[in-house]
Amino acid sequence: MPVFGTLVVVGPGLIGSSVLRRAKARGDLAQRLIAVDSSEQVCARVRELGIADEATTDITTAVAQADCVMLCVPVGAMGAVAATVVPAMKSGAVLTDVGSTKVSVIEAITPSLRADIAYVPAHPMAGTEFSGPDAGLANLFEDRWCLLTPLACTTAQSLHDIRSLWERCGARLREMTPSHHDRVCAIVSHLPHLLAFTICGTADHLAAETRSEVLDFAASGFRDFTRIAASDPIMWRDIFLANKTALLEMLGRFMEDAKAMGRAIEEDDTAYIVSRIEEGRAIRKSLQENRQA
Amino acid sequence: MPVFGTLVVVGPGLIGSSVLRRAKARGDLAQRLIAVDSSEQVCARVRELGIADEATTDITTAVAQADCVMLCVPVGAMGAVAATVVPAMKSGAVLTDVGSTKVSVIEAITPSLRADIAYVPAHPMAGTEFSGPDAGLANLFEDRWCLLTPLACTTAQSLHDIRSLWERCGARLREMTPSHHDRVCAIVSHLPHLLAFTICGTADHLAAETRSEVLDFAASGFRDFTRIAASDPIMWRDIFLANKTALLEMLGRFMEDAKAMGRAIEEDDTAYIVSRIEEGRAIRKSLQENRQA
Repeated sequence: MPVFGTLVVVGPGLIGSSVLRRAKARGDLAQRLIAVDSSEQVCARVRELGIADEATTDITTAVAQADCVMLCVPVGAMGAVAATVVPAMKSGAVLTDVGSTKVSVIEAITPSLRADIAYVPAHPMAGTEFSGPDAGLANLFEDRWCLLTPLACTTAQSLHDIRSLWERCGARLREMTPSHHDRVCAIVSHLPHLLAFTICGTADHLAAETRSEVLDFAASGFRDFTRIAASDPIMWRDIFLANKTALLEMLGRFMEDAKAMGRAIEEDDTAYIVSRIEEGRAIRKSLQENRQA
Repeated sequence: MPVFGTLVVVGPGLIGSSVLRRAKARGDLAQRLIAVDSSEQVCARVRELGIADEATTDITTAVAQADCVMLCVPVGAMGAVAATVVPAMKSGAVLTDVGSTKVSVIEAITPSLRADIAYVPAHPMAGTEFSGPDAGLANLFEDRWCLLTPLACTTAQSLHDIRSLWERCGARLREMTPSHHDRVCAIVSHLPHLLAFTICGTADHLAAETRSEVLDFAASGFRDFTRIAASDPIMWRDIFLANKTALLEMLGRFMEDAKAMGRAIEEDDTAYIVSRIEEGRAIRKSLQENRQA
């Protein structure tokens, strides 16, 4: 029994096209799948891939048919897209999003909401360094967390349905408040990306002296950072700005800790250095026990 | 035709046992392989694994038979081990090491050197998060760089032989000065490790509030950092202290860049943020073209 009649995915990129692939593969996420993108080229590619029953640039006609609209656009575009989508939706339909930040996305979408539309904010914590409709994977969400931040306007039925959808994608679910979500994601995801981008920049600025060697001799440490840093620039710019408060707090804490580590190295404080390294190992071990590593 | 008669590997850990496995697999690195470790337990494990012809805690008897002694101990132990090893070596033998830093290792070993022993400092840039004799892999060095920092006391023949040994391990070779080596490694390897350890500590210190969620929801960004951070604490403590000058310089540059990124986010400077992210992608692309990613 499909969760929804018609599911409309707005923005069939990495996340959106993964949901579509999963829905095609299982058949019980929705009876009918429509992909919407502002680019005719992306729509054509979705048609070629055969991952939706229909792919169109006509957003209002598409969402008018939807029992559920899933917004998979960059977080900075959520507000504008919701302003177009929500007025065209049919009464009783469910709106959901997959944004990596929740407080600012909810703030951006809220002015467009209607009393007869249930909104369920969600964040599937999965991804790769690739983007676009070709990057999706039917099993992208398998064993990954999907965080849900239900609001007053989230009905029990809509929450149940969106939970079912993500469960059928293979995700593990957890509910929390939007602000708690943003703090957790700042430390586990946004700050690591900020640091990865920054160290690539620092390396790039050594250009004159050692740039070619940096490229030649990237040992495993640096290689892992560049994998993180290969992600989509616009998406990450939006995420950084959308989660500014929590991210800058975590960056501040990190900078204090990095300064302390620098001082310990300067002063040969071996006990401090080892205790910090041990903390990293302990966290790693917990992650492995938690099937997250 | 084997490069050496008897090769003695002091410290059959990840790197040392990988060299032994390669030597066993090919047969043309040395005619006879001896592993030396201060731990009888490690020696017993090397015997069980069958990756050396002999495994012993008797370091002076072992190195007296060596045509080449390869020091694979933590960089902080190189000086003390060399002081024991070099006086026991036979005239004309070759001494080499695999330390991740070169200036301080060379300084530590130099007082023990003899005119009739050729010393070839080397650094195979390969590794995993695992350590000990069980962690080694015969193909660990395949397509990885091995950096050589020859000195005045490095004879042409000894350099040729050590180059042959690493070529037969599958490594790509490059020669440079010790200080240049240390600067390059500070940015491509040591600083990334320092940042990875630090962010794990920062996350750990959130304990009271959000620690369990951090563990639960480690998205891909944080997961990659913890993989780096899972490395051996003593080894990394030694590397940080051994490459203090170059590492603190690179940390200083990085901190300036991270502060600038924080300011850009604070001030919604989207152009700056995107330009930094683009740099990361450009470096990633170069690495992929260079077969390092």
